[in-house]
Amino acid sequence: MTDGQAFDIASLHAAYGNGWTLVDMIDTVFARIAAVDDPGIFLHLAEKASLIAETETLGPFDPLSKSLWGVPFAVKDNIDVAGMPTTAACPDFSYLPQADATVVRLLRQAGAIVIGKTNLDQFATGLVGVRTPYAVPRNAVDATLVPGGSSSGSAVATAHGIVSFALGTDTAGSGRIPAGLNNIVGLKPSLGALSTTGVIPACRTLDCVSIFALTVDDAWSVFSVAANADPTDSYSRTVDVSGSAAAPPALTIGIPARTDLEFFGDNQMEAAYSAALETLTKLGHKLVELPFGDFYKVADLLYEGAWVAERYAAVKPFFDEKEASFHLVTRKIYGGAKALSAADAFNGLYALQALKRKLAPLIASVDLICVPTAPTHYTVADLAAEPIRENSRLGTYTNFVNLLDMCGIAVPTGMRQDGLPASVTLLAPFGCDELTAALARDLHRATHLSLGATGWPQPAPAAIPARTKGDRINLVVVGAHLSGMPLNGQLKTLGAQFLKAIRTTASYRLYALAGQTPAKPGLIRVDDGKGAEIAVEVWQLTPAAFGQFVAAIPAPLGIGTITLADGSAAKGFLVESAGLEGARDITGYGGWRAYVESLVAA
Amino acid sequence: MTDGQAFDIASLHAAYGNGWTLVDMIDTVFARIAAVDDPGIFLHLAEKASLIAETETLGPFDPLSKSLWGVPFAVKDNIDVAGMPTTAACPDFSYLPQADATVVRLLRQAGAIVIGKTNLDQFATGLVGVRTPYAVPRNAVDATLVPGGSSSGSAVATAHGIVSFALGTDTAGSGRIPAGLNNIVGLKPSLGALSTTGVIPACRTLDCVSIFALTVDDAWSVFSVAANADPTDSYSRTVDVSGSAAAPPALTIGIPARTDLEFFGDNQMEAAYSAALETLTKLGHKLVELPFGDFYKVADLLYEGAWVAERYAAVKPFFDEKEASFHLVTRKIYGGAKALSAADAFNGLYALQALKRKLAPLIASVDLICVPTAPTHYTVADLAAEPIRENSRLGTYTNFVNLLDMCGIAVPTGMRQDGLPASVTLLAPFGCDELTAALARDLHRATHLSLGATGWPQPAPAAIPARTKGDRINLVVVGAHLSGMPLNGQLKTLGAQFLKAIRTTASYRLYALAGQTPAKPGLIRVDDGKGAEIAVEVWQLTPAAFGQFVAAIPAPLGIGTITLADGSAAKGFLVESAGLEGARDITGYGGWRAYVESLVAA
Repeated sequence: MTDGQAFDIASLHAAYGNGWTLVDMIDTVFARIAAVDDPGIFLHLAEKASLIAETETLGPFDPLSKSLWGVPFAVKDNIDVAGMPTTAACPDFSYLPQADATVVRLLRQAGAIVIGKTNLDQFATGLVGVRTPYAVPRNAVDATLVPGGSSSGSAVATAHGIVSFALGTDTAGSGRIPAGLNNIVGLKPSLGALSTTGVIPACRTLDCVSIFALTVDDAWSVFSVAANADPTDSYSRTVDVSGSAAAPPALTIGIPARTDLEFFGDNQMEAAYSAALETLTKLGHKLVELPFGDFYKVADLLYEGAWVAERYAAVKPFFDEKEASFHLVTRKIYGGAKALSAADAFNGLYALQALKRKLAPLIASVDLICVPTAPTHYTVADLAAEPIRENSRLGTYTNFVNLLDMCGIAVPTGMRQDGLPASVTLLAPFGCDELTAALARDLHRATHLSLGATGWPQPAPAAIPARTKGDRINLVVVGAHLSGMPLNGQLKTLGAQFLKAIRTTASYRLYALAGQTPAKPGLIRVDDGKGAEIAVEVWQLTPAAFGQFVAAIPAPLGIGTITLADGSAAKGFLVESAGLEGARDITGYGGWRAYVESLVAA
Repeated sequence: MTDGQAFDIASLHAAYGNGWTLVDMIDTVFARIAAVDDPGIFLHLAEKASLIAETETLGPFDPLSKSLWGVPFAVKDNIDVAGMPTTAACPDFSYLPQADATVVRLLRQAGAIVIGKTNLDQFATGLVGVRTPYAVPRNAVDATLVPGGSSSGSAVATAHGIVSFALGTDTAGSGRIPAGLNNIVGLKPSLGALSTTGVIPACRTLDCVSIFALTVDDAWSVFSVAANADPTDSYSRTVDVSGSAAAPPALTIGIPARTDLEFFGDNQMEAAYSAALETLTKLGHKLVELPFGDFYKVADLLYEGAWVAERYAAVKPFFDEKEASFHLVTRKIYGGAKALSAADAFNGLYALQALKRKLAPLIASVDLICVPTAPTHYTVADLAAEPIRENSRLGTYTNFVNLLDMCGIAVPTGMRQDGLPASVTLLAPFGCDELTAALARDLHRATHLSLGATGWPQPAPAAIPARTKGDRINLVVVGAHLSGMPLNGQLKTLGAQFLKAIRTTASYRLYALAGQTPAKPGLIRVDDGKGAEIAVEVWQLTPAAFGQFVAAIPAPLGIGTITLADGSAAKGFLVESAGLEGARDITGYGGWRAYVESLVAA
């Protein structure tokens, strides 16, 4: 339980708006560090005086021009912050960077304040947080448990509310496991979305910078600032961060088949996962069991295959010269990579490519996938007894993700009967970060959980901003293209995104058209006073997708302008009056879905 | 010089249409094999009797349903043909495949006939054609020269007109160099366009099956049959082969900067390259010099870096057990790969990724790139003296291509003063196979060269089919967007192109809408017998432009489906029936233009 001003960004900005100062914020940060009294969290702390000097350059409180104005954050110690040593939790490896990593620079430009560098499993190799020569950070919820890693210090600092958010990295789960074990949000972006320039590589082809935050809104705010194509990172890619829309209704969510689930005997974690799935169902989504054997085969490639050689390649001269500087477990893992040949590496790539292709249709058959974040909790004592096996088990649901080029977000789903946190991770293909975040937001809100280990309540949800991108066109769908209806897949195939469910103005009549397969309605505008409000959905498409969509619409349907109950208007489906022959007026049902359900009920 | 019936597909099919038979074809093939008398070309030949039996299953001549009906082809001996041994030019490696490689199966299904398996640089490692334990195939134009490799036998068989086309493979240039050295066309597809299932890998991540033919039309015909996504090949990708359109006018063509060109002292090759560039200029295209240093750095990665390990990985158990079975030069190359570590492999991938990103804007700054196919010719004696260096020099303009995920086509550009063939290769990014082929066709025609070493003239060009690509959408405009009308500029701004003026079917009525500025009509479909034909225009737009256009149409106008007098239908302007209040029925004028002119006249 953390006292005082809540540090989620909404609460913090509200405080600044009410006269709280940056000095108040800095005093609070240091007071909390003292109160938490965990010497394992930070490997380096900014000096209070220099922080105050830095914040004086921020200018007056202005969250519109600097969206992270005055927001304190921590940085995992494998990410460079100019003037603070980077150690990767290996003291002999330490160096003093002259420049910020690209992501740190972008966040600072948006007004965020670096408080310090955080502890990690050495060289980001591990999911436990105990593979460090420094003090092990204590799990923020229960100090007997491992904090999770490798981004241990970043997760714990966030869970205590010492900082509003923290940067981690994630190659095999390092941005998700510690979030799951500390009751916070862990956003693991699509590979390449955040620049890795200024980050010590683990597996260069699989690494990404990740974000720990107390709420999904906060994680998304940070992500949208940090995601920026970086020409200095040859693995940088462009990801759409234009908006943080609501989750579409009636998503199809893949889950591991019952027989493929593994909790290593932890019945409480199993029950918590079932409860989370129940929440998803209550939110109106549909669960589909997927065989998970091939996902696990992909995971096996990560540590049994050639990718360990990437870790070795990243620090080869240092390892070859100073092997003894390494943590014992890390040293054993890295040393194993020396024996791997180039042929082994390529054979690993071929095996991955084959599994990718095999899994592609399965992954495409659902909108996203929901897995437990970690299968169980381990104590520090458990890890001392089984340092490799328990680490590996923690990665059951995380190891395959980056190899399959998926994005994901770990989100708290509740406290178990024993008071320990439970979490699921939502996964989706590259570029679908927005979708996973949108659903994670709904899920987190539904839990009414307090934030991290702070006891702070969840802030009121951020108003979901109207999309402002000029290159998306709104489309009103009325019938077979509604969520869950037979032609909805056409929209998804075109990359359309759900914006909102709404009603038209009361100037339309709806007809069930004759002789259509699948069954389709026709909406037609009528004179004032002769129509009714009709339930519709608004989806957004790129101009090209919209063009293709319109070009494929068969007569008697077409695209006109539809006025909506909220006063807006958008392009949408209308029917030619000549197409109404034999049609049945179903205006009284108020919408196509209600009409279809009445048929099923009948 | 080859006597008798020309074997380009157009000439061959014309002969079949005039009563030539499959037995005539088979007799001719074997007569030519005897006349050429080069024991180095084929490692295995089909038996004449079994060929005749096979062709009897083809059915009557029907090139519409079987586009390669009765077309003889040869297959490089690293590609499986059921029932013929696959040797990869390494006798101890030989095995008897039970199934055709996917590409062979597709070509046979289209009516093509496998004549035999052809010699190659062992395991497709080399660009020379002399690295074989069998007799070295003789260059078809000049027997003192190397034939080029690794697809040596396939290129020579095609150049002599023994077969109409032949399959090769291309990892570093094996499908381009032998084409260039034998005066034929070598189409090296985008990676993944042709399945490699049933092909012995060289570098699994860079291999592709290639096509040798006498003309670009023939290479394209074969390519469009063979290109088919193959679920059994995890590197298979979908490439558009929908049409073989004419090259667009005024292309921007990148060429190596003068100081980056290298001909190793071969002035005649340099002059031939300049002449080819002049032809491109005469065809109306624009040349732009590009710095080529980074392309050469990519090329260096192929043999100096980790990719050699892919070759070793492909045959590791065999090589480890039977190293002595290898050709001496090949053995040396493969042996070198054993020392490469997995870390080396990943470092190679990182270096490539960095160069790819660096080169991307340069490559994107032009429509395609034109390089010499080979910098010079070498004699068999030259190669005996310098087996590695001269091989490497031949790859100057080919080695970087697959690493950069580009497609290419080698095309003859003329005979040098010394009678030796000259050739350029046109290169473009993944998926632009059609563009490179279109320009290669123009270039080959402009040379008026005879085909390969046959003396046969180029056949009349194939009729270029109208584009059938789904990437343009037809739009019917009715009123203010007609040519010369106030809103026509909106179409032009969006890059729309005029297709035709036409009338609708007689099922529409036209109204002059009330209160519109500029004045606009509304077209509405009515019951049969109650409408008239209305004059309209059809314009074509890209999906994105169409999408933007539709999104900007104000109520009560919209886009539906309009049926036209020529029996076609297209998207076009319709009006909502609710928008006709106060409108004047002007159907009697037969169109908006006539109505507007009547107002001016009045």
